[in-house]
Amino acid sequence: MATVSATLGAAADASPRRVAGRQDVHPAWLPDEAFRWLGARRVAVRGSGPVADTVRAELERACARNGGALLAASASRSFGPDSAADSGPSVDVLFAVADCLEQRLGAEGFVIRRESGGTLAVRAGGPAGLLYGMFHLVRLGAAAFAEGAFAATAAEPEVHRPAMAQRMLDHWDNVAVHEVMGQVERGYAGGSVFWKDGGPRGDLDRVRRYARLLAASGINAVGVNNVNVHALETRLLTDRLGDVAELADVFRAYGIRVHLSVNFAAPVALGALDTADPLDPRVRAWWARAAEQVYASIPDFGGFVVKADSEGQPGPFAYGRSHADGANMLAEALAPHGGTVHWRAFVYDHHQDWRDRRTDRARAAHDHFAPLDGQFADNVVLQVKHGPMDFQTREPVSPVIGAMPATRLAVELQVTQEYTGQQKHICYLAPMWSEVLGFRHHGAQGATVAETAARGGGLAAVSNVGDDPFWTGHPLAQANLYAFGRLAWDPQADPAALLDEWAGLTFGCLAAEAGGDPEPLREVLHRLMDGSWRTYERYTAPLGVGFMVRPGDHYGPDVDGYEYTPWGTYHFADRDGIGVDRTRATGTGFTGQYPPPWSEVYESLADCPDELLLFFHHVPYGHVLRSGTTVVQHIYDTHFAGAEEAERMRETWAAAAGLPGLTPAVHARVAERLDEQVRCAREWRDQINTYFHRKSGVPDAHGRRIY
Amino acid sequence: MATVSATLGAAADASPRRVAGRQDVHPAWLPDEAFRWLGARRVAVRGSGPVADTVRAELERACARNGGALLAASASRSFGPDSAADSGPSVDVLFAVADCLEQRLGAEGFVIRRESGGTLAVRAGGPAGLLYGMFHLVRLGAAAFAEGAFAATAAEPEVHRPAMAQRMLDHWDNVAVHEVMGQVERGYAGGSVFWKDGGPRGDLDRVRRYARLLAASGINAVGVNNVNVHALETRLLTDRLGDVAELADVFRAYGIRVHLSVNFAAPVALGALDTADPLDPRVRAWWARAAEQVYASIPDFGGFVVKADSEGQPGPFAYGRSHADGANMLAEALAPHGGTVHWRAFVYDHHQDWRDRRTDRARAAHDHFAPLDGQFADNVVLQVKHGPMDFQTREPVSPVIGAMPATRLAVELQVTQEYTGQQKHICYLAPMWSEVLGFRHHGAQGATVAETAARGGGLAAVSNVGDDPFWTGHPLAQANLYAFGRLAWDPQADPAALLDEWAGLTFGCLAAEAGGDPEPLREVLHRLMDGSWRTYERYTAPLGVGFMVRPGDHYGPDVDGYEYTPWGTYHFADRDGIGVDRTRATGTGFTGQYPPPWSEVYESLADCPDELLLFFHHVPYGHVLRSGTTVVQHIYDTHFAGAEEAERMRETWAAAAGLPGLTPAVHARVAERLDEQVRCAREWRDQINTYFHRKSGVPDAHGRRIY
Repeated sequence: MATVSATLGAAADASPRRVAGRQDVHPAWLPDEAFRWLGARRVAVRGSGPVADTVRAELERACARNGGALLAASASRSFGPDSAADSGPSVDVLFAVADCLEQRLGAEGFVIRRESGGTLAVRAGGPAGLLYGMFHLVRLGAAAFAEGAFAATAAEPEVHRPAMAQRMLDHWDNVAVHEVMGQVERGYAGGSVFWKDGGPRGDLDRVRRYARLLAASGINAVGVNNVNVHALETRLLTDRLGDVAELADVFRAYGIRVHLSVNFAAPVALGALDTADPLDPRVRAWWARAAEQVYASIPDFGGFVVKADSEGQPGPFAYGRSHADGANMLAEALAPHGGTVHWRAFVYDHHQDWRDRRTDRARAAHDHFAPLDGQFADNVVLQVKHGPMDFQTREPVSPVIGAMPATRLAVELQVTQEYTGQQKHICYLAPMWSEVLGFRHHGAQGATVAETAARGGGLAAVSNVGDDPFWTGHPLAQANLYAFGRLAWDPQADPAALLDEWAGLTFGCLAAEAGGDPEPLREVLHRLMDGSWRTYERYTAPLGVGFMVRPGDHYGPDVDGYEYTPWGTYHFADRDGIGVDRTRATGTGFTGQYPPPWSEVYESLADCPDELLLFFHHVPYGHVLRSGTTVVQHIYDTHFAGAEEAERMRETWAAAAGLPGLTPAVHARVAERLDEQVRCAREWRDQINTYFHRKSGVPDAHGRRIY
Repeated sequence: MATVSATLGAAADASPRRVAGRQDVHPAWLPDEAFRWLGARRVAVRGSGPVADTVRAELERACARNGGALLAASASRSFGPDSAADSGPSVDVLFAVADCLEQRLGAEGFVIRRESGGTLAVRAGGPAGLLYGMFHLVRLGAAAFAEGAFAATAAEPEVHRPAMAQRMLDHWDNVAVHEVMGQVERGYAGGSVFWKDGGPRGDLDRVRRYARLLAASGINAVGVNNVNVHALETRLLTDRLGDVAELADVFRAYGIRVHLSVNFAAPVALGALDTADPLDPRVRAWWARAAEQVYASIPDFGGFVVKADSEGQPGPFAYGRSHADGANMLAEALAPHGGTVHWRAFVYDHHQDWRDRRTDRARAAHDHFAPLDGQFADNVVLQVKHGPMDFQTREPVSPVIGAMPATRLAVELQVTQEYTGQQKHICYLAPMWSEVLGFRHHGAQGATVAETAARGGGLAAVSNVGDDPFWTGHPLAQANLYAFGRLAWDPQADPAALLDEWAGLTFGCLAAEAGGDPEPLREVLHRLMDGSWRTYERYTAPLGVGFMVRPGDHYGPDVDGYEYTPWGTYHFADRDGIGVDRTRATGTGFTGQYPPPWSEVYESLADCPDELLLFFHHVPYGHVLRSGTTVVQHIYDTHFAGAEEAERMRETWAAAAGLPGLTPAVHARVAERLDEQVRCAREWRDQINTYFHRKSGVPDAHGRRIY
């Protein structure tokens, strides 16, 4: 821990405000200016351990910059949650661990109130709560200290605790550059922040900055390597474990536990055994020993992430065992140490015959896993992608999430924009996630997805971060990472409000400190981002049919790119119509994986929501949507509209140059990406429209240019 | 030279008959058994220099194995072409350079007759002629010594000389593995025989074996590096020149001159100058010095191969100069040393907008180069791909070849099967090349393509060879390499007869030596190979429309794969019809690049040959072909037929196991490739048929299964 604390000061000094050169890194939502109001106070911290030390170091630095002071607080004195006795009149803000709160709020929860002596007290169930409380005050900024905030007269203090205990970010980072997938699989922000060319990247200061950003968004768990575990990465579990421990030391100071993606066949791949059969006692013993060694190095290690029997990865099927057998075997190894297995449900046949219309990839996860409900050990979390396919711009919510009440489920989102513009396009994803999290499989009285995740394994997401100076390639893609963490903490948060939070921290406090008005830029960001997911949807694959992307890299249009491949991702467009018949009546029966009411809603051509129509039904081009327009005219209309919206976004941004809070570097980077977005949106528009015009022969009702 | 001769013996000992292990290399058309008849004679060689030494070493080894003897022949004695005086009764076969023949036959030509003393005399214009004469007798085998062969009573000796002075094989081999294209661009036979991982492969024995095979097929020029010249490869011209010289030393012994692909921007890329402007005196001086240095190391260096202003390669356009300016500048540098510039005419816009139906890639080479006719220096050869697009299975002959009478043209073929099955499919290309070579741009009275090439730069082709133990991946693809060399020597040779030659050498003499009958295997090879190009055509892109391959790797079907790309390769299929309108009347006007009669034949929907219909015309699916069937039914019929033919090929081959001359290793490798060919042919059949059925809605007249 000492080393981490020691590096903090130096790292903090280097925190740049502008991206001018190679070594500068954009501060994202934690510019120094964000600590301006808190840093101007007399503060004290009561608590011990690395996280409390982090809070102290953060505050010390903020105070040094802003004229406040970090005062000593006696750690020995006992106090209750509402006691102001230990703060005293000289402390403006007190951060204090109150053991008695832990049971009620957990170690991460905290309460805030202005206590009778005038001190603003953040009292937490554990040191992590102090950290989250501090970032909460940072987010509030001036408002935290406004007249009447956290009034001492309030009967109850304001209570904060995360909805989800596990808020995890998975990195699909390879240690060695993969010859096809590169350093970061589906990464659009440069190399890995952890790894480079076969070893650690060696920049723990960057990792620390990263941990700090994640903690400020609420994330408390990180998977440090790709779920496709290649040869070298398999060894992170054993002889390369030291590299993981080094990362864990950094993350620990920010309340984040480190997880490792493991190769199910590690006992074989590492040469120890000739089998990875989960029921073989030698295999179980091997994993138990491996886990022991991991915990000897990393006492708070989070656990394993496993992609098994998926897209070529090894798994229990090779031994005639079930996924419960596989997951429970690893769970057994981790249980004595408090670790968890995140077992991914992304299992399907990726050697499907495109000629075969009966096999349906959308069915696969439910077919494989729903029958196993109740069979998983307590420390297994089944990690389910939010949709039944693969992070498309629009999918129904996966039926698996509503089908396994006796299993701990985590819902997996994708912050990295694999299918949503690859951080070249502005696509603010919080509105989509918010819809997913609010979906109720069993109708109005049933649990939301968020509630199911909250009682299980929480939320997980694939990171969009790399060694890019803006972290995420597209500076505005930072908002997706921020919003993911915040939604995992509070799934009911309004995406637009989260955008305000993010914009306020990232740009607003810069504007304010310089005496500028942050409002115009905030408004521009809303105009660009609030509807950007739907704009992206408009100019890409229509009506929930998905894919139509270029095979391999998944960027840009290729309508038939996946149509005759083994990947199970088809649209079945012919001269008469388009869509996948997934009904029970005449199709693959996928609708039957949903409980009522959705089993009926999706089955019905009349009731199925327009935006998912082609996911569930094959219809003629002349089919009239609920919106009143035909399918083919809808395709033309949305594609012309979407591309126009992209053009307007570019104009809006061009006009935003020079607004308070916006640096030239950020403006230039976003402008450059918008050029590409406009180009690509037009390409989508023209390819999709031309494809369907050539195929259907139906002219555009408005006579616009189709090629 | 000494080192080459010295390695010959050892190399010959290692020449394997079977491919059993890693280091064995298949002998292709030069197994030891092929020298059986010649090696049983008393032979003598008169001539000096490395090539004559090679002939002596070859014969010495053959005689040692087969009971003959290499006798000394006095080099000092003068003799005429018909004089038997120097052979004497003790010599069965004499190989002698006769200087007086050089003017008549060139250094490569030779005459054969049985002379009055009974000696079979091969008299050549130069040492290379001895080598070709020797391989000619090897090809004839027993027939050369049959009763009455080369009768002494014949009034004139049999005369042999190549139709083309330049018979060149270009390697698209990279020295450093290219991250996308690998060690060998468009290579399907493993790594390079020259290069490995950034340097020489270091196996000069393999190079020598290769040179020997090439010489036996008639090839006399080799380009040793990829026409896309990357950074490292640019330096082959300068500090890496030694690596080229080492190869040249090996090839020289087999009468083969080495050529180098150069980077037009080398003066800039190598840091010498800030411009590569061909009219800049400093640039001209730089190239002159570079050429001088090359010739100091390689006195018989052949010259440069240049891909300029093509697919991203630099060229004269960047300086506002013409391709004549560019080529002539390099020609000036090479002229004092007798070198030649092979300037490729493969120049087109690879950033075409697919929306733009007026731009036509097929027009590009003619548009760029025809106006430059007469402007190129004497030692410039304009190297023109045989078709206007890019080595498709079926293209019309490039109009450029008939349009530049005042320019030395070389016709470029592609032995490596980029678009013709990638050496996984059997596709004997000699019938296609034969058609191309016999094409007369100006009608029945005009010159053939072969005649145009013969008076110009000859034939060039892209090699299909790699470090694979069978040289070419698919053992039967060896026939393409062999036939290319033989057609360059004699363009009128019958492809089926060349197949006989190749099969006789490769398999027949093995069968004969073991006392087996070579005839059944010969017949199998004809059944498999004679029609294999047309079979491949049947199951791939129909009626000359081309492409429909998977982008990037160009293997397997993807009907729309290139339809919306910048590559200029479109089929324009819609629900009503398909094809590219290249007429003058309503299309791109490409037909106008041909002289009569072709300008009229191709323009006319009625006269255009079926196999090129969609190259020249956009027609409805119901258009009736000259064959009497509709376009769409033709598509269905040929695709069902082609896939069935592939299946029959596999059966034929399976039944051939154990035939005399066929080793298990060859049988197994071909069988494995046929499995893939059958799989892939079915995939083509189903994707193409499904695509057009979905698009046209026309059912198959025979009710066969379409998906």
